[in-house]
Amino acid sequence: MAALRARTVLLTGSNRGIGLELVKQLLGGPRPPAWIFATCRDPEGPRAQELRDLASRHPNLVLVKLDVANPSAIADAAKIVEGKLNGAGLNLLINNAGIYAQVSLETVDSDEMIRTYKTNAVGPLLMAQTFLPLLKKAAQNSTEKGLSCSKAAIINISTVMGSIEKTPESFCKPVISYRCSKAALNMLTKCQALTYGEAGILCVALHPGWVKTDMGTQEADLTVDTSVRGLLSVLPVLSEKHSGNLLNWEGKVIPW
Amino acid sequence: MAALRARTVLLTGSNRGIGLELVKQLLGGPRPPAWIFATCRDPEGPRAQELRDLASRHPNLVLVKLDVANPSAIADAAKIVEGKLNGAGLNLLINNAGIYAQVSLETVDSDEMIRTYKTNAVGPLLMAQTFLPLLKKAAQNSTEKGLSCSKAAIINISTVMGSIEKTPESFCKPVISYRCSKAALNMLTKCQALTYGEAGILCVALHPGWVKTDMGTQEADLTVDTSVRGLLSVLPVLSEKHSGNLLNWEGKVIPW
Ligand SMILES: NC(=O)c1ccc[n+]([C@@H]2O[C@H](COP(=O)([O-])OP(=O)(O)OC[C@H]3O[C@@H](n4cnc5c(N)ncnc54)[C@H](OP(=O)(O)O)[C@@H]3O)[C@@H](O)[C@H]2O)c1
Ligand SMILES: NC(=O)c1ccc[n+]([C@@H]2O[C@H](COP(=O)([O-])OP(=O)(O)OC[C@H]3O[C@@H](n4cnc5c(N)ncnc54)[C@H](OP(=O)(O)O)[C@@H]3O)[C@@H](O)[C@H]2O)c1
Repeated sequence: MAALRARTVLLTGSNRGIGLELVKQLLGGPRPPAWIFATCRDPEGPRAQELRDLASRHPNLVLVKLDVANPSAIADAAKIVEGKLNGAGLNLLINNAGIYAQVSLETVDSDEMIRTYKTNAVGPLLMAQTFLPLLKKAAQNSTEKGLSCSKAAIINISTVMGSIEKTPESFCKPVISYRCSKAALNMLTKCQALTYGEAGILCVALHPGWVKTDMGTQEADLTVDTSVRGLLSVLPVLSEKHSGNLLNWEGKVIPW
Repeated sequence: MAALRARTVLLTGSNRGIGLELVKQLLGGPRPPAWIFATCRDPEGPRAQELRDLASRHPNLVLVKLDVANPSAIADAAKIVEGKLNGAGLNLLINNAGIYAQVSLETVDSDEMIRTYKTNAVGPLLMAQTFLPLLKKAAQNSTEKGLSCSKAAIINISTVMGSIEKTPESFCKPVISYRCSKAALNMLTKCQALTYGEAGILCVALHPGWVKTDMGTQEADLTVDTSVRGLLSVLPVLSEKHSGNLLNWEGKVIPW
């Protein structure tokens, strides 16, 4: 299995769940990145304790404060990251942060629809927009042909629940605000692939499976270890032929 | 060609464009509805002059003030409509109001994303939620088997630009806020079909074609007359097998 060769990686929502496990496995991999920017809403608070413990042992791990629902916080974080990179580019942006509410068509309201859209769809859009100069720099500095995650890539962590085609199979959980936000995120991914491909940036949406995290609950199918191992084995094989698609943690295409 | 037999119809954004033409052709059809509730943001203002002229000649046409981006305005409108219906149900809800901005991934911002989502996706959700008792009443009062637009239906006016699959074909216009909002509307339509089918309510998303209106511009393919004639000939043939799909003005399925 090919290993991920991205030298610089940034993740959102990295203090727990899938984000935290991505950080751990990236640090423990055969060729850890030169810099991992692990962003989260409150890097000083109690929910980031594990991340701080990791940072104290790994000098390539940098914690950065970033709330994806706050446009000016994204801009502030980009300045810090740019400073640290000191002229280098960003190979890999992983938009992982997300929220999920158990609401149906009957119980959902406008505020819940907007809140979830802001975090799950608008956040990833603004992240890519703001970090675009650093992603472009990574693509320009690379001698690789084609598109890849070691060159420059945007990975949007989406879900099969954002697949309209697959909705009947999982509708025991209506989660309407989540589904609508992730269908929009899937559309965003396609538009990003069509827009950023020319600049040498790969754009893919990934479904991590149903994972035992706070969001997935302990009833879920996969451990976070298995899911993240899967995701990290998919990343190195991605190329231009995958850009603009939704794939699962085993690399299989999911229909829209 | 079968004619539409819905006795009571409500539309949003009916003061111009496709909405206004729907009102005209419904009024002029072989069997006009007993009540057409033509809603718009400002029924007293200059932009509703044509609608007021029509209402002065057609006693079955009722103008109701309704801004789909304002939840309490939706509730107020529902009370007025319920009063007029006087115990009868609502056969057909057409969520037609929509907005469109020429923005790309580079130029879009958070406010534009939210504004468009609120009108194009959250609005139709709240409309269906609020008018559900009246739609259910229409379904219960009907002796028809299966689902149909003469019994009880929600029609969401969507667009091929909300199809992720078809995005590469029309990406000369990125219109990212619009595309994301309409992909979410398509997801909403699928969830509505799965939720409301049991209550006897058909739910379909329709693409009117590229139409010469303020939104479509005069460069568009179709006159508003042709598009609306198409839409109104699709409605009577819809049944349970179409519920939860996106169809164009000629009745052809569009992939997600
Ligand atoms: N678990 C599953 O079964 C599953 C399935 C399909 C897809 N996914 C997707 O996978 C991703 C990660 O999910 P997970 O299971 O790890 O969820 P989780 O355990 O609930 O963790 C969510 C993470 O997102 C962060 N977050 C939420 N809102 C944020 C914001 N506005 N700004 C920055 N960070 C924010 C949280 O930070 P705080 O600690 O500050 O709240 C947390 O770090 C999500 O996009 C989710 O939709 C998960
Ligand atoms: N034209 C096309 O080529 C085309 C193609 C595909 C899909 N569509 C869809 O067809 C529908 C109608 O489009 P159109 O071409 O007729 O557009 P249009 O000529 O721009 O008219 C839009 C209508 O929506 C109303 N509206 C906007 N925001 C509203 C709100 N918050 N509350 C209530 N009404 C609101 C407008 O009212 P005001 O006068 O108050 O602004 C107007 O009546 C839209 O959903 C659009 O996305 C159009």
